[in-house]
Amino acid sequence: MPESAVPLPAPKLGEPYLLTPGPLTTAYSTKETMLKDWGSWDAEFRTMTKSVCRQLVALAGDTSGEFICVPMQGSGSFSVEAMLGTLVPKDGKALVLANGAYGLRAAETMRYLGRAYTLIDKGDYMPPRGDEVAAALDADPAITHVVAVHCETSSGILNPVAEISEAVYKRNRKLLIDSMSAFGALPLDVNKIRYEAMVSSANKCIEGVPGFGFVIARRSVLEAAKGNSHSLSLDVHAQWAYMEKTGQWRYTPPTHVVAAFQEALRIHAEEGGVAGRGARYTKNRDVLVKGMRDLGFETLLKDRWLSPIIVTFFCPADPNFDFSTFYDLMKAKGFIIYPGKLTVVDSFRIGCIGRLDEHVMRNVIQAAKDALADMGVTSAAPPEAAIAERAKLAA
Amino acid sequence: MPESAVPLPAPKLGEPYLLTPGPLTTAYSTKETMLKDWGSWDAEFRTMTKSVCRQLVALAGDTSGEFICVPMQGSGSFSVEAMLGTLVPKDGKALVLANGAYGLRAAETMRYLGRAYTLIDKGDYMPPRGDEVAAALDADPAITHVVAVHCETSSGILNPVAEISEAVYKRNRKLLIDSMSAFGALPLDVNKIRYEAMVSSANKCIEGVPGFGFVIARRSVLEAAKGNSHSLSLDVHAQWAYMEKTGQWRYTPPTHVVAAFQEALRIHAEEGGVAGRGARYTKNRDVLVKGMRDLGFETLLKDRWLSPIIVTFFCPADPNFDFSTFYDLMKAKGFIIYPGKLTVVDSFRIGCIGRLDEHVMRNVIQAAKDALADMGVTSAAPPEAAIAERAKLAA
Ligand SMILES: Cc1ncc(COP(=O)(O)O)c(C=O)c1O
Ligand SMILES: Cc1ncc(COP(=O)(O)O)c(C=O)c1O
Repeated sequence: MPESAVPLPAPKLGEPYLLTPGPLTTAYSTKETMLKDWGSWDAEFRTMTKSVCRQLVALAGDTSGEFICVPMQGSGSFSVEAMLGTLVPKDGKALVLANGAYGLRAAETMRYLGRAYTLIDKGDYMPPRGDEVAAALDADPAITHVVAVHCETSSGILNPVAEISEAVYKRNRKLLIDSMSAFGALPLDVNKIRYEAMVSSANKCIEGVPGFGFVIARRSVLEAAKGNSHSLSLDVHAQWAYMEKTGQWRYTPPTHVVAAFQEALRIHAEEGGVAGRGARYTKNRDVLVKGMRDLGFETLLKDRWLSPIIVTFFCPADPNFDFSTFYDLMKAKGFIIYPGKLTVVDSFRIGCIGRLDEHVMRNVIQAAKDALADMGVTSAAPPEAAIAERAKLAA
Repeated sequence: MPESAVPLPAPKLGEPYLLTPGPLTTAYSTKETMLKDWGSWDAEFRTMTKSVCRQLVALAGDTSGEFICVPMQGSGSFSVEAMLGTLVPKDGKALVLANGAYGLRAAETMRYLGRAYTLIDKGDYMPPRGDEVAAALDADPAITHVVAVHCETSSGILNPVAEISEAVYKRNRKLLIDSMSAFGALPLDVNKIRYEAMVSSANKCIEGVPGFGFVIARRSVLEAAKGNSHSLSLDVHAQWAYMEKTGQWRYTPPTHVVAAFQEALRIHAEEGGVAGRGARYTKNRDVLVKGMRDLGFETLLKDRWLSPIIVTFFCPADPNFDFSTFYDLMKAKGFIIYPGKLTVVDSFRIGCIGRLDEHVMRNVIQAAKDALADMGVTSAAPPEAAIAERAKLAA
């Protein structure tokens, strides 16, 4: 891919880039829409909600009207819980596929709900594979739903949702996907990958600001979901039914955040939709990974599983390296990075999403290089344990 | 009270005032803080969260550290559900006091939770009184908690929480208060009115933008609430425990909305806190009610129960009056008003809260006068049925 000629505009003077998996660095025009107050009951706001939902369904590839988008107040986890509580019936049973914090959170949600579930936990970063899912489903006919995480943001691994979907539907079960950190940049086309519902939020790959999430679900599944929810606020069916009737959110929507999201969607379309957004993030990741490797850093994951969303790097073994110092140095140089979530070895993460491009990524590399020098770190190579740990990632 | 000499600045050209119970017209500087992206993991944002919580507890009058503020993503209803689900134990029983939509919603929440409750429903606008609460508690020793709405926004009635609290604690039960539309403008001082917890949200009397709510609860009550919650996302105990440990929200916070709220709190303090804010709203209401009555409109409530938050007016009986036309005319003149929620007679509501003052209210009166003329309404008097209905409000 050719280098983009015109760099994206930088944040305002003195503001660091957020190299995190959300909240992100967003476009100035996205934030600017929040300078206005909206009446949530007013026709203008209802029109905005409708337009946003229509565009989101289109991003999922649905043109038949078979899928419906239901926005939900709160953070992304609220929408995950809303999806699980509304779409897994009280007498259902879920198979939750976990390889990191977000898969485990879905399992914890099922526990809170008091609904039956079983867990495949692959540890920090091994992907759940189609054949494992097939075996688990064959072994337990009580399982009605499978819950998969598209990009497991805690390591940055891109899980093989296509092969998981195939295993699920060959066995006549239903798939629910947490595509929080992937939707809008990685394809999840209903015509290519079968699923009943997916969930994402405003402040990930669409590059809005945080405050709501959304569930995109098959109409027939939603229709059948009345009375399932354990929670009034998180009842996706009730939210949908009310919206159908009135055009309004059931309870006060985060009006400013919704307005910002509409502008974010406009920019997303202008950039070429999912393909365009995905291409920029992929370029960001490629520049980042190559540059960091050139400095001696190593990635947790093999190239095959690296998502264009966020990348985990091992902390250097050099005793002069200290993450908290590294964080502060990077911040002083204009970049906010993210701590790691691995259990066995120390790591940190750098996000590729948000209003940033390859030019920014080159500056990130330079900042990392300078920060190592500031700390007196001479080698960025990880400890032996990290390499041994990674070797387990055989597939 | 003297008229305020300097009018508040108007919204930007062409933007209507929101005479609604939230989202509100907010200060420009409040919205301006949203022009920046914040990392939710970063120390600056953690400091902001801490400061916001500290200020909210102070607004509740607590100086002893006995009360804790836990913010919660989502709309106000999410916080009400979070409070009920976390603080009413699974083997508890709630007495819900309803006189409008929000009391009924609290009851509906209990139903979703599958927890025991009983309801006193006073209809559209009759206040639940202390002696009724006393009788209900005496009759049912299983009741552990009473749930009261401070200002029932669907009619605008100010419920007598002080006498309710007295009845509750004389009988050794616990009081939970939905002070969504009152907190910050009407006193709810823990040293004067006893309660275990209360809930409010960002976009009411503190005049922030919508996106989160907060629970202010007695520390001992929170400590005892572990494991109660029916919902992972809405678990106030878990949110609190995580915040205590890390200074962060458990899941992605609506960073921009929180930043706006901090500025809203600064303005609130500058205006003289609860007393100053309450005085402005009271003046707004007085000017509004007098002006509308001069035009021939009648209020649903007697003066005694009128809150300085929002006022319900009967629709005129004149056949030329049509609410939807009235709404559009008022909007064209720069004011967004609110439909009524009464079941028996037609009504509409005008809010007194948000970044507006008596000068604005005088213009509202003029606009209403002009709108009546535009419609050819010669008398704003309500129908007989409305007067008869109101006569029931004997107390
Ligand atoms: C895959 C995934 N699921 C769920 C979440 C939770 O979203 P939130 O933090 O908005 O609650 C995230 C957040 O990063 C995520 O990446
Ligand atoms: C008294 C009261 N309770 C609850 C709510 C619900 O808040 P939200 O609409 O933010 O969910 C409101 C909203 O106006 C309210 O006035």
